[in-house]
Amino acid sequence: MSYLTHLYCAADCGRDALDPNVPQHLCSCGSPLLAAYDLPTLAATWKREALTNRPPTLWRYREVLPIASDRDPLTLGEGFTPLLRAPRLESELGLRRIDIKDESVNPTNSFKARGLSVAVNRACEFGASALSVPSAGNAASALAAYAAVAGLPAHVFMPADVRPSFIHDCRLYGATVTLVDGLITDAGRVATEKGVSQGWYNVSTFNEPYRVEGKKTMAYELGEQLEWHWPNWIIYPTGGGTGIVGMWKAFEELEGLGWVVDQKRPRMVSVQAEGCAPIVRAFTTNQERAKPWTPAVTLADGLRVPNALGDFLVLRALRESDGAAVAVPDNDMVAAMKELARLEGISAGPEGAATLCALRELVKTGIIKPEDHVVLFNTGGALKYLDLVS
Amino acid sequence: MSYLTHLYCAADCGRDALDPNVPQHLCSCGSPLLAAYDLPTLAATWKREALTNRPPTLWRYREVLPIASDRDPLTLGEGFTPLLRAPRLESELGLRRIDIKDESVNPTNSFKARGLSVAVNRACEFGASALSVPSAGNAASALAAYAAVAGLPAHVFMPADVRPSFIHDCRLYGATVTLVDGLITDAGRVATEKGVSQGWYNVSTFNEPYRVEGKKTMAYELGEQLEWHWPNWIIYPTGGGTGIVGMWKAFEELEGLGWVVDQKRPRMVSVQAEGCAPIVRAFTTNQERAKPWTPAVTLADGLRVPNALGDFLVLRALRESDGAAVAVPDNDMVAAMKELARLEGISAGPEGAATLCALRELVKTGIIKPEDHVVLFNTGGALKYLDLVS
Repeated sequence: MSYLTHLYCAADCGRDALDPNVPQHLCSCGSPLLAAYDLPTLAATWKREALTNRPPTLWRYREVLPIASDRDPLTLGEGFTPLLRAPRLESELGLRRIDIKDESVNPTNSFKARGLSVAVNRACEFGASALSVPSAGNAASALAAYAAVAGLPAHVFMPADVRPSFIHDCRLYGATVTLVDGLITDAGRVATEKGVSQGWYNVSTFNEPYRVEGKKTMAYELGEQLEWHWPNWIIYPTGGGTGIVGMWKAFEELEGLGWVVDQKRPRMVSVQAEGCAPIVRAFTTNQERAKPWTPAVTLADGLRVPNALGDFLVLRALRESDGAAVAVPDNDMVAAMKELARLEGISAGPEGAATLCALRELVKTGIIKPEDHVVLFNTGGALKYLDLVS
Repeated sequence: MSYLTHLYCAADCGRDALDPNVPQHLCSCGSPLLAAYDLPTLAATWKREALTNRPPTLWRYREVLPIASDRDPLTLGEGFTPLLRAPRLESELGLRRIDIKDESVNPTNSFKARGLSVAVNRACEFGASALSVPSAGNAASALAAYAAVAGLPAHVFMPADVRPSFIHDCRLYGATVTLVDGLITDAGRVATEKGVSQGWYNVSTFNEPYRVEGKKTMAYELGEQLEWHWPNWIIYPTGGGTGIVGMWKAFEELEGLGWVVDQKRPRMVSVQAEGCAPIVRAFTTNQERAKPWTPAVTLADGLRVPNALGDFLVLRALRESDGAAVAVPDNDMVAAMKELARLEGISAGPEGAATLCALRELVKTGIIKPEDHVVLFNTGGALKYLDLVS
């Protein structure tokens, strides 16, 4: 059912035919690996119409997901989230069309469910006996839940000053929580140190090739929900960057499948916090890689990522799409959480709300125009962040 | 698109042809009103296969929902929640099959989204200018969100000692929160006192006929997801009772539509808290109505409902289905929250977790048998209840 063929180095170091049937983490050059599928065969045999009647989860795109076995995947019903029109924001901002892809109704209340469901299924195929992840917050919740579904122990590593709601949520699922002084990067170091000797399967962002595969389904769904007509803009909050990288990869696959032809891909906007904006800085200063940001200070846990393995892939997607990168202040995110809830009934954490701040900025500066169609990604709900609005 | 024909008194007082095209609240005899549809015409023209290709929300059952206009309903993507197999609980309890209908992935994190989305759409059709509801917790969040979608002010009334998470969540959506000394029944009294003079449209449980219509879609979905083969048992937590009443109504409609024929309906189990179990007491002492429970004390906000307008309808469904009613202690609910999360990866509030406690009890007493197929309803997630497990 899967048309996975091989893995390749995302940095084009030349290693482009790695075996996907054994556990693979980083390329030997240190860069992320990405998954490739037999798109020519699929283009001839797999039509968009085949999706009708499939379950409303991300597993409807099984052919371009990496799960080898024919058994049903372990699932909590993740994906196929609603795409909601935002009529009051359209009026207020004077735009033709704004949709919000509401990832908050995923299991564990965020888009992280997508990447972790696929990565954990794949880890199970490889016989993993324990799973680990460093996380700024929501990824830890998601790993904890999917490890429970898989019946495997989960070890999650978070900054010591992460919101208590994330800690309680992870522990509810039975995960072992280790709090690390510092940021997600420090948590990642400790997770690796502790995990290697224990043989834990580490699903850290871009450290294995399959979280990206889960994330890319956001673009497949967007295509289906918009009847395969791309919007002009996608605005997405960037921590580790798998969302933008995954969607950019999906656009290419969809062209290869012949499901989207002769269309300009959406212009991609990366949104970060003013207190931690390595991608924005690298984009505006025209760098290929992002320098680590220090000190990284923002109340949006998911944006407190000072540097990311996939930085160059995010930057490449922004540039190839003629996109943009915007840093927004924390106070504006909190105000935008209230606006999204009050104007459109949508529960957004500060990361999702940040996309509205970026939209406002890009409209004000004339970069986004009244005739444009814009999609905001609400990557997660407000419930783990109620302290911000209480 | 809707085949709504009329409203009728649920207590069979004789008023059985009320106009559904004007706002209706209670019957003049004081009982709830229910909605009727032209099932004979639908049976001839509307086939199960027509559902293929419809959106994965409760609006796929538009023909048997009360919205009159042909415009798209106001929606946050509610309904069509996952039905998840629970393999570890099956092993532990020695049952053939256990499924969990996970209502926590609805907007606002609970099944309350269903009733309120339908009720608010209907209120909009009637030109309501403000909405109000008394609530033990999750219904207030849901009304707050759908009122925001409708662009209407929301006034929610909750017990003063409700969990702060519910208060913050409602305020995030812009609702005016009034805290009332006492229970949901006291909140209901105050909501009515304040609202009548203001002309607020009150969507209190069973006080208008359409929340039940939203809730009944749980049974339509269950039918679709189980390919129209009912399970032996449905276990459901009971506060106000619209869930069980709505599903029982749906079973009858589905027989009328010819979508389910010659099948025994599921045996319905109502679960309440030991500290507030009016339905359980009335069921076991063979009463037609439930006496108010006092004092009502449970940490499960949604079960802190000392008496309910629809009590006799819940009791009727339990008896006609040869069902059961079980009261469970608070401590067991908290333990079951952890079990559901750790064994099956499901985030459940104490109300949803209570269904597992009831299942365990009914297996222990031999009422539920190894060959039975059981469906538990997880009515809402754990995120507003993290204090219980921290």
